[in-house]
Amino acid sequence: MARIALDAMGGDHAPEATVAGALLALGDIDPAHSIQLVGRTEIIRERLETLLTGEFAHAASWRDRLEIIDAPDVIAMHDKPVAAIRSKPNSSMAVGLRLQAAGQSDGFVSAGSTGAQMAASAVILKLHEGLLRPAIPTVLPTSRQPVVLIDSGANVDCSPQELVQFAWLGAIYAEDILGRSAPGIALLNIGEEPEKGSKEVKDAHKLLQQQEALAFRGNCEGRDILSGQNSHGQVDVVVCDGFVGNVLLKFYESVAPLAFEALKRAGVDRRLLERGFKAFDYSETGGAPLLGVRGVSIIAHGSSSARAVKNAIRVALRAVESHMDEHIGRRLPVKVETS
Amino acid sequence: MARIALDAMGGDHAPEATVAGALLALGDIDPAHSIQLVGRTEIIRERLETLLTGEFAHAASWRDRLEIIDAPDVIAMHDKPVAAIRSKPNSSMAVGLRLQAAGQSDGFVSAGSTGAQMAASAVILKLHEGLLRPAIPTVLPTSRQPVVLIDSGANVDCSPQELVQFAWLGAIYAEDILGRSAPGIALLNIGEEPEKGSKEVKDAHKLLQQQEALAFRGNCEGRDILSGQNSHGQVDVVVCDGFVGNVLLKFYESVAPLAFEALKRAGVDRRLLERGFKAFDYSETGGAPLLGVRGVSIIAHGSSSARAVKNAIRVALRAVESHMDEHIGRRLPVKVETS
Repeated sequence: MARIALDAMGGDHAPEATVAGALLALGDIDPAHSIQLVGRTEIIRERLETLLTGEFAHAASWRDRLEIIDAPDVIAMHDKPVAAIRSKPNSSMAVGLRLQAAGQSDGFVSAGSTGAQMAASAVILKLHEGLLRPAIPTVLPTSRQPVVLIDSGANVDCSPQELVQFAWLGAIYAEDILGRSAPGIALLNIGEEPEKGSKEVKDAHKLLQQQEALAFRGNCEGRDILSGQNSHGQVDVVVCDGFVGNVLLKFYESVAPLAFEALKRAGVDRRLLERGFKAFDYSETGGAPLLGVRGVSIIAHGSSSARAVKNAIRVALRAVESHMDEHIGRRLPVKVETS
Repeated sequence: MARIALDAMGGDHAPEATVAGALLALGDIDPAHSIQLVGRTEIIRERLETLLTGEFAHAASWRDRLEIIDAPDVIAMHDKPVAAIRSKPNSSMAVGLRLQAAGQSDGFVSAGSTGAQMAASAVILKLHEGLLRPAIPTVLPTSRQPVVLIDSGANVDCSPQELVQFAWLGAIYAEDILGRSAPGIALLNIGEEPEKGSKEVKDAHKLLQQQEALAFRGNCEGRDILSGQNSHGQVDVVVCDGFVGNVLLKFYESVAPLAFEALKRAGVDRRLLERGFKAFDYSETGGAPLLGVRGVSIIAHGSSSARAVKNAIRVALRAVESHMDEHIGRRLPVKVETS
């Protein structure tokens, strides 16, 4: 009986994809759960009526599991994140997260501006004690088990201490959500040797070696990410700063369409291609939790379809049910010692 | 009538692949050119005899276009680059580069340690005036024209000034080797907005805007690299620090084999796959010139096959013939003004 607040105004295809996504989710999740649609009441209501009298006529009876929460302000993609949170206190993001802080909601999902959601979540939900910054994990398919890349949330200029905290957040995520025990942690670098890399990465390497409760497997290189291992063993979590993570993931997303086209031109059957590339499509995972905040804030892709929104709501439910947030609060070392 | 010095000892498959690569090259390039095999004389001679009396019997008459230059020291992959250059003055790298500095050779090719080659080239050939660091460009296939990613040479902790110099080096390379006029330059970042990114990247953005002789197209994101354009137009050169470039390229190299396997499992015919993936295989390009040194130093992949070595020798010849080195010396702004 969890209540998930959905930012109905966030994302490239809002409110169409968000409202439809909520209806798809209601048909898919346990009937004990409900969804709070946060945004401009008139817009949401109009969209909802259109869908419930058309495409989603079968969903009319789920109406009592849907609540509309008014949030008149709208954050645009070009708004500066922190300023937007301050100057638009009644945006769908701020209202949705405040519901949770007040105990009236259990999780929040948005496909809006990632920067604004990170800022609003940190301000409204607050960070766990000792944490310097929240981070976003992305689960990538590999030739073995899926691997967690953290941070993919565009945290730039990360300190060695922050990289160590990302390792901890990734480890707890890998345990709670992927079911790994003692997940292997690797630091993304230009070589496996500890003396390689930028100043921050070299210092982070030293600090990670001191984290006795983490299974640190040393550095991994770009080529090791998708193999799920380095020369020291299985890698479940790859740690990097958000600049590298962001560039890498956006690059990765662009490879499959290019390969798809090249193979189609080479004469490969489209249906075989679709089947083969399915393993690489992680857009359907829906969203990733912002790790480190006290609560559940799920970041969905800006281009989320209704199906992706539905999946993001499922991710929120899994985060609520796994109590990952509490585990992070309990297990995160309050202070990373500097050497 | 260029003389190319080949590091016969460098690379995972040396001296087999290097000596065989030299013979392949001799059959492929203008007969006026010659090759200098640099390394341990006995080892090279033995290998050469084996090949010339076996697989390469047809090449016996090319012998007078081959010279063996003795270099008794060997640099191992685990040697620290700068220290190795100092402590092993008669390594194949040092000897090969000194030949060029002395005017007895026109270009140098090695598949050995990239770090050692960068250090030795900077020390022995020297850098152009005002240049802070040399850089390595990599040419990537895109859905349009190929694009130059610079730096891919593992230069870490790059200053904004260094990033601007990489942009200049990349532009001249794109003109001389890829034949682009007024190549479009983009700065790799986490968003197109100038205020995004790390401190270094934000400052580099400001400096690049002041380079009136460069066609600066602003930032590009990870997804734009393989599309060869951003919202401001065609992108011929993508500028990033060597940490990001290294991680990105090694990651990219690992994607194709993974996709290949997934598609084979999905039932796609192996030959169609090989044809389709050919466009993504840039290992056969042979090597990339170290840009910014006074001379020609071609960095080949450590895992170079004989065919890749042959191609690297061709790259060296193209660099010699295009006089790219002189163009860099003439056109590089001696000092990048800080704002």
